Formats: sequence, structure tokens, C-alpha cells
Amino acid sequence: MPPRVYGRGQQALFLGPSGLPGLGVLDYAGHTYGGILGRASRKRCQLPGYADDKEQVLTRLRRIEGQVRGLQRLVDQDAYCIDVLTQISAVDKALKGVAVNLLDGHLRHCVRDGMASGDREAEAIVTEASDAIARLVRA
Amino acid sequence: MPPRVYGRGQQALFLGPSGLPGLGVLDYAGHTYGGILGRASRKRCQLPGYADDKEQVLTRLRRIEGQVRGLQRLVDQDAYCIDVLTQISAVDKALKGVAVNLLDGHLRHCVRDGMASGDREAEAIVTEASDAIARLVRA
Amino acid sequence: MPPRVYGRGQQALFLGPSGLPGLGVLDYAGHTYGGILGRASRKRCQLPGYADDKEQVLTRLRRIEGQVRGLQRLVDQDAYCIDVLTQISAVDKALKGVAVNLLDGHLRHCVRDGMASGDREAEAIVTEASDAIARLVRA
Amino acid sequence: MPPRVYGRGQQALFLGPSGLPGLGVLDYAGHTYGGILGRASRKRCQLPGYADDKEQVLTRLRRIEGQVRGLQRLVDQDAYCIDVLTQISAVDKALKGVAVNLLDGHLRHCVRDGMASGDREAEAIVTEASDAIARLVRA
Repeated sequence: MPPRVYGRGQQALFLGPSGLPGLGVLDYAGHTYGGILGRASRKRCQLPGYADDKEQVLTRLRRIEGQVRGLQRLVDQDAYCIDVLTQISAVDKALKGVAVNLLDGHLRHCVRDGMASGDREAEAIVTEASDAIARLVRA
Repeated sequence: MPPRVYGRGQQALFLGPSGLPGLGVLDYAGHTYGGILGRASRKRCQLPGYADDKEQVLTRLRRIEGQVRGLQRLVDQDAYCIDVLTQISAVDKALKGVAVNLLDGHLRHCVRDGMASGDREAEAIVTEASDAIARLVRA
Repeated sequence: MPPRVYGRGQQALFLGPSGLPGLGVLDYAGHTYGGILGRASRKRCQLPGYADDKEQVLTRLRRIEGQVRGLQRLVDQDAYCIDVLTQISAVDKALKGVAVNLLDGHLRHCVRDGMASGDREAEAIVTEASDAIARLVRA
Repeated sequence: MPPRVYGRGQQALFLGPSGLPGLGVLDYAGHTYGGILGRASRKRCQLPGYADDKEQVLTRLRRIEGQVRGLQRLVDQDAYCIDVLTQISAVDKALKGVAVNLLDGHLRHCVRDGMASGDREAEAIVTEASDAIARLVRA
């Protein structure tokens, strides 16, 4: 079990296999996972906004993983393109459902805490949330 | 290796674990995968439109599966909401990339074949493709 | 000039031309505009979140209106489908830009005020914002 | 009434007010409309794919124009942010509906004609359609 409380302002620079930042992504335990460039943001709250829903979020992500494996089976078996596309639309919808859920928890907890921490923190946390919404809307 | 050629008009009704249609999804080999309701369309071409790119499509789907597992690790480790959301946007973008790629192959092969098979088949295959595009655009 | 301050909790039921709710939309001055069913939400802040950017938002919406008129001219002149589609994608992107901008102002002002007004109001305003984000992400 | 038949391969470079390409957009009659950079594609069919639905497409675009004007009235009257966002989602959905409709006609007519014109034209018209779909899916 990972610790449920972590310090404010703890900033982990994501490092790639080569040790260069931004060339790969290390997750919070140091495992790499493929193909996403980036680095972690500064955590702006004690607990993540999804702390109360964590098991439900994990269940939904596991189901999505199963759906992506199902997609591979369909392709491996030469399924009809349209059937593969239909399932991709379903996975996409499921992913966006998780994102909207995470955003809700983020607003409800992290953004609320940040707003109570003064004008500067309020500005910063809203800018960060708006950027995440923009990425999602345009994804 | 699954057979690379299958008969036209072969229609598999997807059955759920309960044996009732539409309550679950069986893939083309009879494995269930979770949470997507639906049934297979009538295959309208001898080979899927992605036949030539099959390995590349599978590689991209495997990478997406890895990304979804990475999402689970992030959540399991109480990563900051914004970091989880950023990765969800990346997975979403990758999935849509696969979809656009599949549609391209579908138009290039299946739709082209269908259009050469007479007016009625041309109408049917375009309606089907447009519906898939609509689902994707609105996903 | 409309009044810049309006009372809390003022709820306008949108009425259609027939006087039945939900069959049409009256805007805030009583003009109908076509094709959107709905009714106004309870206003949860004294000034809209875009109050400081109002002129900029109006300018962007006027430009989008010009783009939609441009689309009509293209269609009227039998422009090539692909050119019409390219412009639709551009209009879509511009609209989403306005939406992300409005959401930013909404979080920065209305949601912040609501969060300072106690737990119940905080819950309600976040639920409302999440619903708007969900509609936008799925639009 | 614009001419309903135009020559193949007629390529109009869009010129901006300054006479430089790509700095503005001239529509097919030479009117500028704001803010979209681009140039016309080579027309690949005698009539646009929406020729039979032209009046219906124009009606839908006029309704969307009315919705965008409704958005301006809402903002001008300091409507609640959430109400403006709800209407933006509705306009977005309507625009995407028109796009899916245009794509359907494009596949049914222009792409079908192109596919009958030989391998090279078939390749080119599918690449062009896939690019338009990609822009739309990511818009």
C-alpha cells in the first residue's frame, strides 16, 4: 500500500530510461510505461481528489484495460473493421467517463483546498485545472 | 494464427455470459470481454482493411494497454489528479489515432470493394462507415 | 446595457413560442433562438465569471458567427466537401476555445465564491460544473 | 444561383486581403471571412457530395448561425456561465452533425466517383478523406 499522505510541493521529475527528463515517463514507483512524454506536476493537495473513490476508479481502469485487450483479440482474429471501431468508440467513452469523474473529485477536494489557501494558490490551481480540461476537450 | 480469409455475410450474434444477446460481448474466438454491449456487424470484405498493417495496429494497441496499466499504477500510488488526467488525454489521443488509421484502411479496401459490388452494396457500406464515423466523432 | 448585478436564485423558466417549457429557448431578454431545448440554471454568482473578459468573448463569438456565415457561402457556391469540412473543424475548435475560456472564468469566480459559501453550496456548484464539463467533453 | 457544374482540377488558391496566400480565406466568390487560414483543395468531383441535400445543409447552418447569435445575446446579458456553456455544447453537437452528414455525402458521391477513376485517384481521395476525418475527430 502506498502512503496516503504526501508532502506538499513534492516534485518528481519524470526521467526516461536514459536518465534524461521528458524522454520517457516513470510512474510514482519508478516503473516506466510506454510512449507518454511528460513529467509530474507539483501535487497541490494532501490526498488526491479521488481518494474516496480510488477502488471504483481502479475497477473502471481495469475494465478499460480488459476492453483494450479485447480490441487486440478482435484485430488478431481479423475482425471486421467496423466492429473494431465500435469497440474503440466504447473504450473512448469509458476513458472520458473516468476523466470527468477525476475532474469532479479534483474540483471538490484539491481545487477547494487550494482556493482556501489564498489568492496565489487559487490562481495557480485553476490555471492548472483549466489546462487539464482543455487537453481533455481537445483530445 | 487466425484464418486470413473468412466468408461473406457470416454474422455472429454476440452473447453475454448469461447467453442473452446484448448483455455482454463475445469476441470472434468466443472470449468475453467486459462492459461493451453490442453484436458483430456483417463482414463486408474478404480481409479486414487493416490486414496489411495488422502488426502495427497490434503494437499500438499493446502500447495503449500498457498506458492503461500505467494509469492504474498512478492511481494506486495516489498520484496527483492532474497527472492522471494528462495521461488519460494521451491515451485518448492514441486510441483516436488507431481509429483514424483503421477507418483509412476500411475506406481504402472494404469500402472500395463494396462500391465496386453494385449500388445496393455501395449504399449499405457507406451508411455503415458514416455511422462508425459519427460514433467516433461523438465519442 | 443589461444590469451587471442580478439577484441570487432568480430562475427563469425558458418558454417556447407555444408557451410550453422546454419546447424552445428564450434568452435572457426574451428573444427566442432556434433549436436548443433547455431552461436557465439558477445563477450562482453575482456577476458571470466572464465579466472581465466579456468584450473579448463577444468578439470571439462574432468571429465564429462570421465563420458560420462563411460556411453557408461555401455551401451556397457548391464548394468542395473537404473545404467545407476543414472550415467546420476550425469553427469547432474556436467554439471549444471559447468554452474552455468560460469554464476558466467560471472556476475562478463563481465556483470560488460558491466554495466560500459553505459545504452545501460548494457541493452544488461543483456538481453543476462537472456536468457542464461532461457535456463539453462528449459534445 | 452558382453554377452546379465546375471543371475538374480547378484549383483556387485562397488569398488574404494582403494578396498573400494563407493569411486569410477567400470563399468561392471572393468574399473574405474571418480568422480561418487555409486554401481550397482540388475539387475531385463534378458536383459536391451534398448537392442533393444542399438546402437542408444550408438550413442547418442558418440555424447554427442563429444559435451563435443567441450565444452573443446570452453573454451580452450577463447570462450565467453554465447556461452559455450548455448552449455551446449544443452548437458543437449541431456542427458535428452537419460534418458527419457532409462526410456521408462525400463518401457516397465524390469518393465513389474517385474510386472508379483508377488506383491513383482512389488513393488520393481516400487520403484526403481520412485527413478530414482526423481533423474532425480531433477538433
